[in-house]
Amino acid sequence: MGEEIFSLESLLEKNLQGRDLDEAKRILYGSGFSALTLPETASREATDLDFELKGYKISAQAEETRPPRIVRIGLVQNKIHLPTTASIVEQREALHQRISQITKVAADCGVNVICYQEAWNMPFAFCTREKHPWCQFAESAEDGPSAKLCCQLAERYNMVILSPILERDSLHGDTIFNTTTVISNHGKVIGKTRKNHIPRVGAFNESTYYMEGDTGHRVFETDFGKIAINICYGRHHPLNWLMYGVNGAEIVFNPSATVGALSEPMWSIEARNAAIANTYFTAGINRVGTESYPNEFTDGDGKPAHHDFGHFYGSSYVAAPNGGRTPGLSRVNEGLLVVELDLNLIRQIKDKWGFQMTARLDMYAKELANAVSSDFKPSIIKG
Amino acid sequence: MGEEIFSLESLLEKNLQGRDLDEAKRILYGSGFSALTLPETASREATDLDFELKGYKISAQAEETRPPRIVRIGLVQNKIHLPTTASIVEQREALHQRISQITKVAADCGVNVICYQEAWNMPFAFCTREKHPWCQFAESAEDGPSAKLCCQLAERYNMVILSPILERDSLHGDTIFNTTTVISNHGKVIGKTRKNHIPRVGAFNESTYYMEGDTGHRVFETDFGKIAINICYGRHHPLNWLMYGVNGAEIVFNPSATVGALSEPMWSIEARNAAIANTYFTAGINRVGTESYPNEFTDGDGKPAHHDFGHFYGSSYVAAPNGGRTPGLSRVNEGLLVVELDLNLIRQIKDKWGFQMTARLDMYAKELANAVSSDFKPSIIKG
Repeated sequence: MGEEIFSLESLLEKNLQGRDLDEAKRILYGSGFSALTLPETASREATDLDFELKGYKISAQAEETRPPRIVRIGLVQNKIHLPTTASIVEQREALHQRISQITKVAADCGVNVICYQEAWNMPFAFCTREKHPWCQFAESAEDGPSAKLCCQLAERYNMVILSPILERDSLHGDTIFNTTTVISNHGKVIGKTRKNHIPRVGAFNESTYYMEGDTGHRVFETDFGKIAINICYGRHHPLNWLMYGVNGAEIVFNPSATVGALSEPMWSIEARNAAIANTYFTAGINRVGTESYPNEFTDGDGKPAHHDFGHFYGSSYVAAPNGGRTPGLSRVNEGLLVVELDLNLIRQIKDKWGFQMTARLDMYAKELANAVSSDFKPSIIKG
Repeated sequence: MGEEIFSLESLLEKNLQGRDLDEAKRILYGSGFSALTLPETASREATDLDFELKGYKISAQAEETRPPRIVRIGLVQNKIHLPTTASIVEQREALHQRISQITKVAADCGVNVICYQEAWNMPFAFCTREKHPWCQFAESAEDGPSAKLCCQLAERYNMVILSPILERDSLHGDTIFNTTTVISNHGKVIGKTRKNHIPRVGAFNESTYYMEGDTGHRVFETDFGKIAINICYGRHHPLNWLMYGVNGAEIVFNPSATVGALSEPMWSIEARNAAIANTYFTAGINRVGTESYPNEFTDGDGKPAHHDFGHFYGSSYVAAPNGGRTPGLSRVNEGLLVVELDLNLIRQIKDKWGFQMTARLDMYAKELANAVSSDFKPSIIKG
């Protein structure tokens, strides 16, 4: 294998030039985004703290009846910061410290809404199938230690924070969900939303830890736009993306944790397709690095037992309703991606492409009701 | 602008090498396909007839309870072959001749199912907004001149033919639809399927020519697998792709006609996302070349009147349920893409990823029924 490559973008920039590079970028990334200048102090801090910092801007046309609706979003991809053999509390503390550092830099960059990766406050231990000690990372979505930290950060920086964690619901039998807490820029928990679709693939044994979410497709109306969160494996389900759009989402975050051998060729496709099909912005965020566990485990693929999950390849990016996307963060480093959006682009692209107008949802509501009935007969013509 | 570049793939092959090229390809195209050796006579014929011929193979694991289910599909992208000032009949004849040539080469390559591009038997005249003379290209889906030609070719070559045309439905008020005729390998019309979603974007004035299809999401069970056709703009609608899958489709063809300035960054995303999300094969086919019309027309974008529609960028490709895809045909030349599939891959990937099992369609049937009701209240939490 050799060392992991830094990013697809770095391969292109290194090897292509002039019109070749321009055309490759146009075909791969579309157009409509440009570099965003970030404060020098922020760039220096990021370098000192050893994480990548990138900024882009996605603009819209000026309108006569609405002012621009400019929002800066921040996507964080991070590693774990202590070995998985450290105590649960110490591991969580180390991640709290790291996320506080990165969030401060985001504040310096004027970020209004930040989203962390899936289960950001723990290693992605579901590969082990061990309940102990890992279930101890689960905490209350409303007033657990991570929610408390995020409320402080949100108030301090006037920033909406989306905090994806493993939730312990003590009110309902101590059950566990995969949940994102949504915290307003005034430092209050607005609510939570749960992962709707759970993987049963490879080492992603998450269905043994928690159940399908019961919070539907809520959209959170914040001071910085209407926001929804489609957690990880939910990105494979177009209806999941659709319903957030039907409920009015303008930005849908997809906090994830996924590894190269399994999903990398899908990563650039799914959140971007959702942005196109639903005419909103999407933000794909993926964990980065390799995590090693004390006890060996198998992946159900006939291969020998081993201690690590594979390489989480980062590559976080933002996709726009016009079909374009930003370049990704790297495949190997921690990073913060800051993207300035004009939310007015959404309605402009709806007017241009008309996907909602031409969606025929009434037809699909009928077809789907028919499809889930026990006497469903598929529409098949034999010849 | 300069000349159109040949293809993204050619840019990569020219400029990258060794591990850089391997990694770029892995990230962009996934894995699981290999080159397919085609008969030398076919390659020679293609060269003589001045079209590109490429072959790939997508394999599956051997199973103990089912033999492999090998099917070769052919995707044709072609130009018009007479100026649009020639008579309607002559233009159609020239295209009949061209498609017959390419279909013969496909037969030499062992193709079992072939699909032509959208409205293959005419120039894509909808940009003009002129009803005369272009509506004269519309013909009966069952026994018009193009259906008759295709029945002959299908029987001669033992090949299922999918023939996307502009349909005149004389039984129902001479109305016009955008339709694909499905012809069995025994040379009989099995049925037809109509375009479900019609664009109203840029020069794609198709909604002034024909109406939304009323044939639902039929799947055609042929000797070579269960096949559906999602015509052109239908690719922007995930529910459209979904319902073909729910009805059992194994291969969904997407015959299209789309131009670079508008859609190129979306082209590689949508059919591929559909293959992933619905765990079937998809085949994106796009017209190629530039077509010029006698009378000038405007595009509704404030720019001066002009005579041509823009560059149809070809780039036809096949996507697999495992997330991989073949390289594309070129952006500039006519071409035939032959891809050998093992349909057993579909169920293998369903077992691996479980997207159907985790789809929660019953939840979405309810949410969608609610969403289309007149008293719909979106699920919004204010904070």
